[in-house]
Amino acid sequence: MTEHTVDDALFAADPVERGIARELFAEVRTAPIISPHGHVDAAMLAEDRAFPDPTALLITPDHYVTRLLHADGVDLADLGVGAAVDPRAAWRLLAGRWHLFAGTASGFWFERTLRDRFGVEDELTAASADRVYDRIAAALAGERFRPQALFDEFGIAVLATTDDPLDDLAGHARLRESGDVRGRVAPTFRPDAYLDPAALGFASRVLRLLGGRPASFDAYLDALQERRRHFVAHGAFSADHGVIEPYTVAMEAADAERLFQRVLSGEADAADEREFRGHMLWQMARMSVEDGLVMTIHPGVHRDHSPAVRRRYGADAGADIPVPVEYVRNLKPLLDDFGLRRDFHLVLFTIDETVFSREIAPLAGFYPSVFIGSPWWFIDAPEAIARFRAATAESAGFYRSSGFVDDTRAFLSIPVRHEMARRADAAALARMVVDGRIRRSRAEQIIRDLVDAVPRRAFKL
Amino acid sequence: MTEHTVDDALFAADPVERGIARELFAEVRTAPIISPHGHVDAAMLAEDRAFPDPTALLITPDHYVTRLLHADGVDLADLGVGAAVDPRAAWRLLAGRWHLFAGTASGFWFERTLRDRFGVEDELTAASADRVYDRIAAALAGERFRPQALFDEFGIAVLATTDDPLDDLAGHARLRESGDVRGRVAPTFRPDAYLDPAALGFASRVLRLLGGRPASFDAYLDALQERRRHFVAHGAFSADHGVIEPYTVAMEAADAERLFQRVLSGEADAADEREFRGHMLWQMARMSVEDGLVMTIHPGVHRDHSPAVRRRYGADAGADIPVPVEYVRNLKPLLDDFGLRRDFHLVLFTIDETVFSREIAPLAGFYPSVFIGSPWWFIDAPEAIARFRAATAESAGFYRSSGFVDDTRAFLSIPVRHEMARRADAAALARMVVDGRIRRSRAEQIIRDLVDAVPRRAFKL
Amino acid sequence: MTEHTVDDALFAADPVERGIARELFAEVRTAPIISPHGHVDAAMLAEDRAFPDPTALLITPDHYVTRLLHADGVDLADLGVGAAVDPRAAWRLLAGRWHLFAGTASGFWFERTLRDRFGVEDELTAASADRVYDRIAAALAGERFRPQALFDEFGIAVLATTDDPLDDLAGHARLRESGDVRGRVAPTFRPDAYLDPAALGFASRVLRLLGGRPASFDAYLDALQERRRHFVAHGAFSADHGVIEPYTVAMEAADAERLFQRVLSGEADAADEREFRGHMLWQMARMSVEDGLVMTIHPGVHRDHSPAVRRRYGADAGADIPVPVEYVRNLKPLLDDFGLRRDFHLVLFTIDETVFSREIAPLAGFYPSVFIGSPWWFIDAPEAIARFRAATAESAGFYRSSGFVDDTRAFLSIPVRHEMARRADAAALARMVVDGRIRRSRAEQIIRDLVDAVPRRAFKL
Repeated sequence: MTEHTVDDALFAADPVERGIARELFAEVRTAPIISPHGHVDAAMLAEDRAFPDPTALLITPDHYVTRLLHADGVDLADLGVGAAVDPRAAWRLLAGRWHLFAGTASGFWFERTLRDRFGVEDELTAASADRVYDRIAAALAGERFRPQALFDEFGIAVLATTDDPLDDLAGHARLRESGDVRGRVAPTFRPDAYLDPAALGFASRVLRLLGGRPASFDAYLDALQERRRHFVAHGAFSADHGVIEPYTVAMEAADAERLFQRVLSGEADAADEREFRGHMLWQMARMSVEDGLVMTIHPGVHRDHSPAVRRRYGADAGADIPVPVEYVRNLKPLLDDFGLRRDFHLVLFTIDETVFSREIAPLAGFYPSVFIGSPWWFIDAPEAIARFRAATAESAGFYRSSGFVDDTRAFLSIPVRHEMARRADAAALARMVVDGRIRRSRAEQIIRDLVDAVPRRAFKL
Repeated sequence: MTEHTVDDALFAADPVERGIARELFAEVRTAPIISPHGHVDAAMLAEDRAFPDPTALLITPDHYVTRLLHADGVDLADLGVGAAVDPRAAWRLLAGRWHLFAGTASGFWFERTLRDRFGVEDELTAASADRVYDRIAAALAGERFRPQALFDEFGIAVLATTDDPLDDLAGHARLRESGDVRGRVAPTFRPDAYLDPAALGFASRVLRLLGGRPASFDAYLDALQERRRHFVAHGAFSADHGVIEPYTVAMEAADAERLFQRVLSGEADAADEREFRGHMLWQMARMSVEDGLVMTIHPGVHRDHSPAVRRRYGADAGADIPVPVEYVRNLKPLLDDFGLRRDFHLVLFTIDETVFSREIAPLAGFYPSVFIGSPWWFIDAPEAIARFRAATAESAGFYRSSGFVDDTRAFLSIPVRHEMARRADAAALARMVVDGRIRRSRAEQIIRDLVDAVPRRAFKL
Repeated sequence: MTEHTVDDALFAADPVERGIARELFAEVRTAPIISPHGHVDAAMLAEDRAFPDPTALLITPDHYVTRLLHADGVDLADLGVGAAVDPRAAWRLLAGRWHLFAGTASGFWFERTLRDRFGVEDELTAASADRVYDRIAAALAGERFRPQALFDEFGIAVLATTDDPLDDLAGHARLRESGDVRGRVAPTFRPDAYLDPAALGFASRVLRLLGGRPASFDAYLDALQERRRHFVAHGAFSADHGVIEPYTVAMEAADAERLFQRVLSGEADAADEREFRGHMLWQMARMSVEDGLVMTIHPGVHRDHSPAVRRRYGADAGADIPVPVEYVRNLKPLLDDFGLRRDFHLVLFTIDETVFSREIAPLAGFYPSVFIGSPWWFIDAPEAIARFRAATAESAGFYRSSGFVDDTRAFLSIPVRHEMARRADAAALARMVVDGRIRRSRAEQIIRDLVDAVPRRAFKL
């Protein structure tokens, strides 16, 4: 990789187009980062301890990295997943298989993080493994690599975490009161496990949520509403919903009460459970209309696809596989009731790319409440971002989108992920300038808006 | 936008590739326009009155434009939808939000229409709104901007309208007899509302169609066939079908009769209604085999998705959202019976892009009756057209396609839409010449055929 | 077509990017061909007779070619399908319609085969038809164009055929014993017709398979296992499954026995038949775990879509049309039981492109057993290959893929198909080098691996 390509990464080969992309990117290269949805741990930030070692920081918690090693035959336990591990040995496992990551988004983030944060220019190989490991380990010992120092160095203006409804949000309170970081750290209300009767431990979780109230549907709704208020009081601006399908359904109160009793008692069948999930997604929209939390939906992932992996390593060990998504019919009951409500915001994410041009852009191009979520998870990558823009901008433009969402638990990768998105948008806009679809001055405004006005609007910041 | 990009709009950045695209486009730049499917009003052409004002011409009737403004919070009534409006005020609403349209196909058409028709080079902004409005309003007062003069200036060789089966087609008769325009204006038979028992007012519409005949299925088929003959007599060359799914089914006469009585009486359930629609699509194919009308299918749009918008503003107010389409199994009964019939032509359109490479190109690459409809509605845009060609040409070539179809009610946008399609095809062909997949001379022939021989064949012109 | 484009076919226009592509392609231009799945006839190779004429070699057996001519109104019988034909007359039919193939993958292969094998530089036209025919016919008479000579000239290292489970594999035995070709020719176990109760003649085929054993499910499994052993003994390394959907289901032995009796007796309904197919796909995976045959799945094709064509011309006459595919839920039972088994290999193919980024890459990026099959059939073409790489590399890299699979019965097109794939990969890698996602040295290693280490690993060669 020459200096040339490092500076011009993700831009077109053509010199004119590349030059325009470079100048558009320069407009936002150092702009503050708005990260309105992600999985960084607030306590990690509040406690501000040094990261223990390169593996614990860069490998074990990043299931993008561990899953591809697993596919190549590496045991997840040997990477520290659900087990203690010699961090250097795990690092060598990665370094010796670095060719697996060539061309992947993870590889791109990883290499640029090594270079930008630790000055590593070498390619990761079996031969360079120890040298790179030592260099990172040494850096991690310094003050500059404490979470709070990095937070400010990254220029993060807004960072949302993802939290259990019953979380007391103490880490958030401490961070806010201490003023230890310059940006805003906000919790996000994520109630899936309290809304899905098929989730392990649903009934006992609901009882905990009810906290002694009688187990009626009304009390359940009240308890949810109260926890949302708790989140709002702690600075939350959105509620997030990870559902297998964005199915929604309105329901009479008496029917909902009967269904609630059935799912709570464990007598519900799969159809009942689906109806309950569908009604609760509708209820979450109703509550968002009332309390103003932006509603985000991340649907269509078959979680823990492998029961053997789940048994051995627990949930979220990388065996999550996307399935097709349908938004238009599933969301109709929700949109019928709330789609035109002033100040209701609904951000739709997808891994199933087919819905971008067919469903999400047309919905967001009509309903004032609907915003196009940026490419998510497996498609959070340069070429996928280009496809996303191509699939949505022609019918819905740039101003119905959410801005980039990194959705990451890999704290160190936040800057390079946003850089990647900014570069990809600069490249897409340069293409449109060169082929006469957008004026140069307009493109400059758009790229500035995409990292500021656009996410601020979608997420009410 | 420099002169450079205006002339080379939609072409690649590379100078060699761009040069070839430019020369290919020059082959068809001024070729006559064949518009075999659209929604221009024949009476408007026949009456030839001046357009009242810029808003009535360019905003109110164009739901591509009004929907994106609605998404941004503008009340449709303030744009003249279902309500009288101060046209200048509506125009200012658009101009002040022109950034919403950056990168959209609508924005491209609109800007180029302003430039090509009215000499407007300025970007539309709050500041330029009145100046541009006045310029257009002044132009509209002149003879040059009367519908018939524009029709000839546009170089339209064929223009199809879309008409109710009971329409007397008087506007068409007047146009044809007067010879007021040089091109051919043809009606299109569009019977959806007479074939779908779920359509509002279906029964009374069928009774009107029957015109006093006894309400039997045979009489119903006879009445439809008669109206088709009426259309053929008035120059129609196609019958168009807007269905939620392209489901088809053959049926015994006695079963069809019973089903007809059930749907007419209002006792049919949703399954009955689906069967009826499916059988009537099969019947329409049967009639096309007999009377020669080219059958076109535009499936997969959930019309009037928002009941509140429908109540307030009526149908077609922009809340139409695409859903997935399946052609292979749905069309099998139809193709089993008519797919190999000599002179039967069936043009398949889609907004769901997934069917281009998977279903439509393979069907059109085997059945002599099947033609690949050009990208429609939300995907009637430069990058979507590039995707369409990439998805269909590699297995079905260029000669199984329909030629470009503008499908517009925005009369003024017809030339720029066809220009866009010609530019997009020139760009796609230039790419294939540069990378050695098509000989230069062959590309020149193809681009000429795409605007003439190809649509003439698909639509029997 | 200039020399320039012939040498640089399928590369980008930009000189820098093109230069890198050219150098990457040079790394593999003459590398041996590994063709781990296809439909060449082993007997044809073993007998080594001269090809009778250009039509019998290049038109009649290639349903890519005949189907597009059929779509244009040519009778399949006039191309020699299911009928004797004057080969020169058939050739003229093709030559006079050569414009149909412009831009298609078939056209690309055909033209380059004429040039590379027969020195034909002229475009195929009505005027050149006889000249080209005579040139090819003359060449075919020579020793150089015998199957075995071509096999060696093509540099084929591995060629798999596709064979009926009851085939004695005599052709393979003869080839192996004679040593007449330098590469390895291996059979492939393809049991569809013995596993699908809906297949014509299923019951009698199963009885033949049982060969006198009692008709129990256990005996049926034993017989299948034995035939697999026969294939392994004759050098087979994979078993291939062409199913309408990759549905799988585990089943208790007693239930399977009852179901087997039902499908054998012809009393099974469609749901039974689906369960049986689903269980047998699961059984095939179980056997692959035991005997080591790589399992490949080619799903989602509606075979013989036109009953009239099937009646008149037999199966495989070109009326095969893809349908949507779903892998994640369908394969779950199979992957639950075998997905983590050491040495089980499962290669997933698709024509439905939507599953590449959504399902196949995520599955192959986690399960060590799953490999991403290269684009198949209708999408075995330059731009589709580019889309495939873009859709899979960003999440699963290059090392979870199968390597290129030509899947062809058109023997003469094997070299150009592999050349096309190598060029397309060189172009994709050049793009990634230029935009800074892959180091140059890494790209050189990858392209070498894609034609050697990658297919050897996926197919255990």
